[in-house]
Amino acid sequence: GFAKVDHHRKKRQGFPEVIFGEGKDPTQIINISRAMINKQENVLVTRIEQTKAETVMKSLPDFQYDVASRTLFMKNNDENVQTSGYIAIVCAGTSDLPVAEEAAKTAEAFGVEVRRFYDVGVAGIHRLFAHIEEIQNATVSVVIAGMEGALPSVVGGLVSHPVISVPTSVGYGANFQGLSALLTMLNSCASGISVVNIDNGFGGAYNAVMIQRIANTH
Amino acid sequence: GFAKVDHHRKKRQGFPEVIFGEGKDPTQIINISRAMINKQENVLVTRIEQTKAETVMKSLPDFQYDVASRTLFMKNNDENVQTSGYIAIVCAGTSDLPVAEEAAKTAEAFGVEVRRFYDVGVAGIHRLFAHIEEIQNATVSVVIAGMEGALPSVVGGLVSHPVISVPTSVGYGANFQGLSALLTMLNSCASGISVVNIDNGFGGAYNAVMIQRIANTH
Amino acid sequence: GFAKVDHHRKKRQGFPEVIFGEGKDPTQIINISRAMINKQENVLVTRIEQTKAETVMKSLPDFQYDVASRTLFMKNNDENVQTSGYIAIVCAGTSDLPVAEEAAKTAEAFGVEVRRFYDVGVAGIHRLFAHIEEIQNATVSVVIAGMEGALPSVVGGLVSHPVISVPTSVGYGANFQGLSALLTMLNSCASGISVVNIDNGFGGAYNAVMIQRIANTH
Amino acid sequence: GFAKVDHHRKKRQGFPEVIFGEGKDPTQIINISRAMINKQENVLVTRIEQTKAETVMKSLPDFQYDVASRTLFMKNNDENVQTSGYIAIVCAGTSDLPVAEEAAKTAEAFGVEVRRFYDVGVAGIHRLFAHIEEIQNATVSVVIAGMEGALPSVVGGLVSHPVISVPTSVGYGANFQGLSALLTMLNSCASGISVVNIDNGFGGAYNAVMIQRIANTH
Amino acid sequence: GFAKVDHHRKKRQGFPEVIFGEGKDPTQIINISRAMINKQENVLVTRIEQTKAETVMKSLPDFQYDVASRTLFMKNNDENVQTSGYIAIVCAGTSDLPVAEEAAKTAEAFGVEVRRFYDVGVAGIHRLFAHIEEIQNATVSVVIAGMEGALPSVVGGLVSHPVISVPTSVGYGANFQGLSALLTMLNSCASGISVVNIDNGFGGAYNAVMIQRIANTH
Amino acid sequence: GFAKVDHHRKKRQGFPEVIFGEGKDPTQIINISRAMINKQENVLVTRIEQTKAETVMKSLPDFQYDVASRTLFMKNNDENVQTSGYIAIVCAGTSDLPVAEEAAKTAEAFGVEVRRFYDVGVAGIHRLFAHIEEIQNATVSVVIAGMEGALPSVVGGLVSHPVISVPTSVGYGANFQGLSALLTMLNSCASGISVVNIDNGFGGAYNAVMIQRIANTH
Amino acid sequence: GFAKVDHHRKKRQGFPEVIFGEGKDPTQIINISRAMINKQENVLVTRIEQTKAETVMKSLPDFQYDVASRTLFMKNNDENVQTSGYIAIVCAGTSDLPVAEEAAKTAEAFGVEVRRFYDVGVAGIHRLFAHIEEIQNATVSVVIAGMEGALPSVVGGLVSHPVISVPTSVGYGANFQGLSALLTMLNSCASGISVVNIDNGFGGAYNAVMIQRIANTH
Amino acid sequence: GFAKVDHHRKKRQGFPEVIFGEGKDPTQIINISRAMINKQENVLVTRIEQTKAETVMKSLPDFQYDVASRTLFMKNNDENVQTSGYIAIVCAGTSDLPVAEEAAKTAEAFGVEVRRFYDVGVAGIHRLFAHIEEIQNATVSVVIAGMEGALPSVVGGLVSHPVISVPTSVGYGANFQGLSALLTMLNSCASGISVVNIDNGFGGAYNAVMIQRIANTH
Ligand SMILES: Nc1ncnc2c1ncn2[C@@H]1O[C@H](COP(=O)(O)O)[C@@H](O)[C@H]1O
Ligand SMILES: Nc1ncnc2c1ncn2[C@@H]1O[C@H](COP(=O)(O)O)[C@@H](O)[C@H]1O
Ligand SMILES: Nc1ncnc2c1ncn2[C@@H]1O[C@H](COP(=O)(O)O)[C@@H](O)[C@H]1O
Ligand SMILES: Nc1ncnc2c1ncn2[C@@H]1O[C@H](COP(=O)(O)O)[C@@H](O)[C@H]1O
Ligand SMILES: [Mg+2]
Ligand SMILES: [Mg+2]
Ligand SMILES: [Mg+2]
Ligand SMILES: [Mg+2]
Ligand SMILES: [Mg+2]
Ligand SMILES: [Mg+2]
Ligand SMILES: [Mg+2]
Ligand SMILES: [Mg+2]
Repeated sequence: GFAKVDHHRKKRQGFPEVIFGEGKDPTQIINISRAMINKQENVLVTRIEQTKAETVMKSLPDFQYDVASRTLFMKNNDENVQTSGYIAIVCAGTSDLPVAEEAAKTAEAFGVEVRRFYDVGVAGIHRLFAHIEEIQNATVSVVIAGMEGALPSVVGGLVSHPVISVPTSVGYGANFQGLSALLTMLNSCASGISVVNIDNGFGGAYNAVMIQRIANTH
Repeated sequence: GFAKVDHHRKKRQGFPEVIFGEGKDPTQIINISRAMINKQENVLVTRIEQTKAETVMKSLPDFQYDVASRTLFMKNNDENVQTSGYIAIVCAGTSDLPVAEEAAKTAEAFGVEVRRFYDVGVAGIHRLFAHIEEIQNATVSVVIAGMEGALPSVVGGLVSHPVISVPTSVGYGANFQGLSALLTMLNSCASGISVVNIDNGFGGAYNAVMIQRIANTH
Repeated sequence: GFAKVDHHRKKRQGFPEVIFGEGKDPTQIINISRAMINKQENVLVTRIEQTKAETVMKSLPDFQYDVASRTLFMKNNDENVQTSGYIAIVCAGTSDLPVAEEAAKTAEAFGVEVRRFYDVGVAGIHRLFAHIEEIQNATVSVVIAGMEGALPSVVGGLVSHPVISVPTSVGYGANFQGLSALLTMLNSCASGISVVNIDNGFGGAYNAVMIQRIANTH
Repeated sequence: GFAKVDHHRKKRQGFPEVIFGEGKDPTQIINISRAMINKQENVLVTRIEQTKAETVMKSLPDFQYDVASRTLFMKNNDENVQTSGYIAIVCAGTSDLPVAEEAAKTAEAFGVEVRRFYDVGVAGIHRLFAHIEEIQNATVSVVIAGMEGALPSVVGGLVSHPVISVPTSVGYGANFQGLSALLTMLNSCASGISVVNIDNGFGGAYNAVMIQRIANTH
Repeated sequence: GFAKVDHHRKKRQGFPEVIFGEGKDPTQIINISRAMINKQENVLVTRIEQTKAETVMKSLPDFQYDVASRTLFMKNNDENVQTSGYIAIVCAGTSDLPVAEEAAKTAEAFGVEVRRFYDVGVAGIHRLFAHIEEIQNATVSVVIAGMEGALPSVVGGLVSHPVISVPTSVGYGANFQGLSALLTMLNSCASGISVVNIDNGFGGAYNAVMIQRIANTH
Repeated sequence: GFAKVDHHRKKRQGFPEVIFGEGKDPTQIINISRAMINKQENVLVTRIEQTKAETVMKSLPDFQYDVASRTLFMKNNDENVQTSGYIAIVCAGTSDLPVAEEAAKTAEAFGVEVRRFYDVGVAGIHRLFAHIEEIQNATVSVVIAGMEGALPSVVGGLVSHPVISVPTSVGYGANFQGLSALLTMLNSCASGISVVNIDNGFGGAYNAVMIQRIANTH
Repeated sequence: GFAKVDHHRKKRQGFPEVIFGEGKDPTQIINISRAMINKQENVLVTRIEQTKAETVMKSLPDFQYDVASRTLFMKNNDENVQTSGYIAIVCAGTSDLPVAEEAAKTAEAFGVEVRRFYDVGVAGIHRLFAHIEEIQNATVSVVIAGMEGALPSVVGGLVSHPVISVPTSVGYGANFQGLSALLTMLNSCASGISVVNIDNGFGGAYNAVMIQRIANTH
Repeated sequence: GFAKVDHHRKKRQGFPEVIFGEGKDPTQIINISRAMINKQENVLVTRIEQTKAETVMKSLPDFQYDVASRTLFMKNNDENVQTSGYIAIVCAGTSDLPVAEEAAKTAEAFGVEVRRFYDVGVAGIHRLFAHIEEIQNATVSVVIAGMEGALPSVVGGLVSHPVISVPTSVGYGANFQGLSALLTMLNSCASGISVVNIDNGFGGAYNAVMIQRIANTH
């Protein structure tokens, strides 16, 4: 078939490929999954709606679907990132939850512990301070925010570890589907903040897992 | 001449016109000023560079030039906004100072007390908290920030009075000359925040003065 | 649960939280509402479509739904902003009505009197002049316009109180979903105009209520 | 040489070519002018700075330079648009004057009477009403505005003839070099308004002259 | 009700208001129409889909619906623009037809003769030349094009009357819903071209009718 | 040093590297040139201003500078693209000349014949038709235009060979430094048109030379 | 009818017109097809969804529908581009397949051999190198990529023939429906790359076929 | 004075503040530096032009200026990030050098070893492969590219450590001052890539140093 599954990637990058579910039909997802199962790889599918997931699970019933994050996962080995630390997943509002959970589930699929700090946006900053110590003790934070996207700037000024920030498309009007939050994060005057694409919870977590792995292998 | 000085405005709006210095030559500024002086109005010129100001002052030596705010001012009457309260002028970084001072001098030209809280940006948020009570006690705040422009969201969540936010063009790259800060402020998830044009310190102060006047006349 | 209702806000800001209905399911809205009812707070839900509202009202029949503004409201106390003045809600065209009514209902929920001046856009400016005196006598105006968004500039030049302007997404083509109206308002050559996000009737009213409260408490 | 002067145009369009001075060196302007002089055509050069114009005038001393409009003009025949009516040139602020004068001088070069209504922007709308009858009696209006560019909407609603609107780059910040005014004019809710490029005073006048000619030839 | 029908407009502008059907429900359209019928005005509704039109026609059966232009029209008097000339409606491709017909029906509703020149885009320029003389003999042209929008530049260089150009949203990708065609027309190097909003066939025709009326009344 | 001259490229692509002069200082240009001279390669430097070129020529006097195209060239071998056909370089206005000449000089540096058709823009389309047959007989055309950029669409509809189109930054206002012309070319409804970056005369010619070489080697 | 089929085009361009199916109803497509069938021309319809295609095939059963490329084709003659070489169609990811197949089917409809190299994106660059020699031996490449669109830059640096690059709208967030990939390709630092519109597989192939024909006719 | 040096930051973040030189005058830089010297902190000033640096060095002669990176540095203690690994600084072209060196000097100022891999852009990909193993052995890479910005995608697919990508403003036309490279990096289909602001070499290095420190402290 046309899709060339990148088994080589695990060699190059230490992680198996993750299947991007959007725009793939169930058959394509089943085929790619089977190829990975044959190699005893853990299989994670992101951005897959419930009905599509259910069709896939008819063929591959060992998959587990998670509604909040819209992910399918099947554990086929224990090659985890052995981890003494944890990743803080911090998000601004309840509407950012799907992206936050995509990040959380991705990190957990790679065997890393995550701690969730949700609905702690800057407009009520006492909510953030209530948890700040536990956030500071993480190895790395993934900070997720829509609307004006100011949360990473505040977190970045309070922690001494890297912050991966994820803008979300939550908002309306002059938000321009996440552009506002994206620009905010790129222009942060706090140091130690880097950015991934709008709504890319997967990407935020993937970067964090790579950093967590450094902590464990050094 | 072509310029029609809007003396009528003071009737309609309670404030004399303020002269926008940019793009006007010294002669134009002198002529408009003279017309206002003839009516015993206070004259404020904003956005005027030092050399141009000096040319104007050769003809009108009663003007006082202020470098930081790039304003010229001449007091010709005492029709102040009598004020029991004060306006908080809050700014994020030292580079925002020219805009902050334009705001401060404008408010002072209208006879309103201002208190300055400068270089208290969100990346080092303890600097803001050190002054928060005095900010909370203001009648209204003008909050000025460039780069990601997150400061109004944090202030807006901590005070119970209106916040006029002023984005500045300070920054580079994906800041797009203040667009990033502008969008941040328009999308703020804190309530009670409104926005004026990029670098418009004058406009921020003008709105605040109008609100302060309500406090005094009711 | 994940949502952290910000009861603290009333302390900090003097107003209870308002529930943004868009993107929340009925159960989330019911839960947040109950938490607020328990504290005897008035509950306002904005941006909620009729069918969703009806589901909520099955559990909480004391809510009243208003079609034009798409809001739910329940009055649980009388802690109004005691007001001797009123807010003028001015809008340009009939298509701006939903945003104008969101503003009006928000202000009324906070116990402030509003007066409505609708369909008075600049292309037939005699319609505005027919009402100008009553607008001039307001404490503050909320001016709402789509398309080219010119109305706040004209109103701003005719009144001596603050104008909060709200661009709407009404229009097509080079309107870019309200961007045109937004830019118009940010660039207004009238003084005393500030701007909130596109279609943010709630935000326009919230700022106006804060200003009206200043009138009443000073 | 490379430039192909379009003498044919006068046949096709009834008007000789107008020389766009920007980006042309004096020699190029002199050569094109000479070709036109040889045909007894009137020669108009737009967008030419004073020093460049003076170099041109050393070779062609019959040219007249006009500072305000940055144009050079030489009259070589009387083939005017014979006109019983006039064009109203209306502009919002004193900074729009160079564009307004480019329009006025262009129309006059084609032999059409213009009447100037300057500094009558919408923020002080009584200034417009003071002249509205004389504007209404024009055959066509050219309305020029920067900043928010609202003037054509107001004029368009008050006159019964076509309005050619010209956005200018006057402004700063969210004005984006005239984009704000351009969008305002394209989205005008007044009918009978069409738009030309930012700062294109020449183009505004050219359209108006074509319309005035229809009045005279029918 | 909220809508203020602008009967005054006919006095000011010589034409009755035209009803913009988009975003209005049938009841609103019926009410506004009835108010106009009472004054014996001709009623034109634009941008109204067939099913909505049929609902309106149940109450007002004298309306005639035209599918191609999505307009409703009812003739209640003969106050036409008496016309010896005609308007050329020129369009580039078959997909531009709805906008072209909106223009044509609008002009005809005002009693002006139109001649249609459709599918004559620049990529096969012999199709335009086949009709160029009849286009040149019009009083004014309305030129409609999507995609790259180049047709007005070519027509503008071949005729000696004003060209009103209408960009359409026809196209895909880097067309950005008509932005590409709009920019093309604003930057045309042909003189005598002005522009209205994307897909604004009505506006193109309205300007042309105003110009045609000048031809007839002088 | 830091720069790695890509001698390998001639192997891979059949052409030596061309030096992009902008942003390089004379010493860097001299060093890279010397490395190429040592390999008997022809050396072409583009986008180099006269004064910088003169500094380079003090060290490397065999270079020839061409003002119109801002290029330096030195011929060190005869490995030309042997060519029976020619490339048509077509441009819309005289201001596009620097880009057109950059294209022409680049093609000539690779040993290909070019024929120039300048100032034949669509607003006076008879100028194009005067030369159309000679353009049709070319192997490939490079069509260069600023402002609205419509010329490639017209040429593309008249020839049966590939058209490489080059938008230029010539224009002002809504031209946005060439964006308008770029979008026009990308959306062309003529087939057989591809596009390179704004002002990229070099790139337009390089593509054309590659196509001409196919003609010669097949 | 309104559509003017451009039979003349085959004379001017050597290829018959191809029907753009989007926005045309089945009747329009049938009519245009019949006119071409009458002239014994091969008929290709692009961008036509299955259900619409099936309606067309009820009237014209000789059409063949291809799901992957969404094209209809009918062969009515053998006037192929006789070809000794082939076009390489290279694409980055499986989601780009519809655009790649539109390109492939277009080239094949003109009688040119294509070779497909799919799912060889830059993030796993060994997949490209596995096929690079066969790509290098093509006459011309059409390189298709969404997301960041980097593939043409890498291919362009490895081959000595022209690369036509086609950005796709595949991606999300800061991809802006293909804008990101489009800009990448326009700014490629590899030489010999030109670009067509987003998702324009047809246009990419058409340019390549024109180049392939040069190879065959010289 | 107005600037509040954030000594607290070292406590919170483990690193002293770095002085952003742009927009600060020599006196401001000297004052902030002195405050840091008093605390025995290492002082790094970025984005400072040579002449300004020389003025500062007259007062503080222990500073060392580096032309390529436009940085001033003074070492006042040995509190380095003790490091067993190194950071790879990879850049695409010679014009990206100032940004690359800003990154390199920043990392070195924090006591981390860097290895430089310059001018290895994707258009000549063999240059990258010549060094790939040494890049793969780094703890983290900072990858810097202008124009189309494709390099991080290729590097990201070849290494198993985090990649911090830095877009530069190098390029012209449709590059839009680095926007093109920025979007490319945000949309990378390689995993493990995060992005900082355009030209923000400092930020890229700061993130990398934070990650390197994790390697050393775990
Ligand atoms: N939610 C996600 N967002 C962005 N990228 C993803 C996501 N899930 C998976 N990916 C990436 O997409 C790649 C697979 O793309 P594909 O070949 O289209 O399945 C994986 O290797 C991941 O790098
Ligand atoms: N219509 C509205 N538009 C914008 N913001 C709103 C609106 N209604 C409520 N809000 C704000 O949204 C906040 C609640 O957001 P959430 O936590 O998502 O319910 C409230 O405190 C208000 O500040
Ligand atoms: N100020 C102006 N703005 C826009 N277009 C102008 C201006 N002055 C002249 N033109 C047009 O530019 C054309 C001449 O361009 P050129 O051949 O470059 O001199 C004239 O025929 C006019 O249509
Ligand atoms: N080249 C640079 N680019 C971006 N940010 C920088 C740069 N150099 C220093 N900074 C940041 O700017 C902050 C200092 O800003 P300031 O208070 O304006 O001097 C430092 O703490 C750094 O986080
Ligand atoms: Mg909340
Ligand atoms: Mg600071
Ligand atoms: Mg109305
Ligand atoms: Mg004025
Ligand atoms: Mg057609
Ligand atoms: Mg010319
Ligand atoms: Mg793949
Ligand atoms: Mg190089």
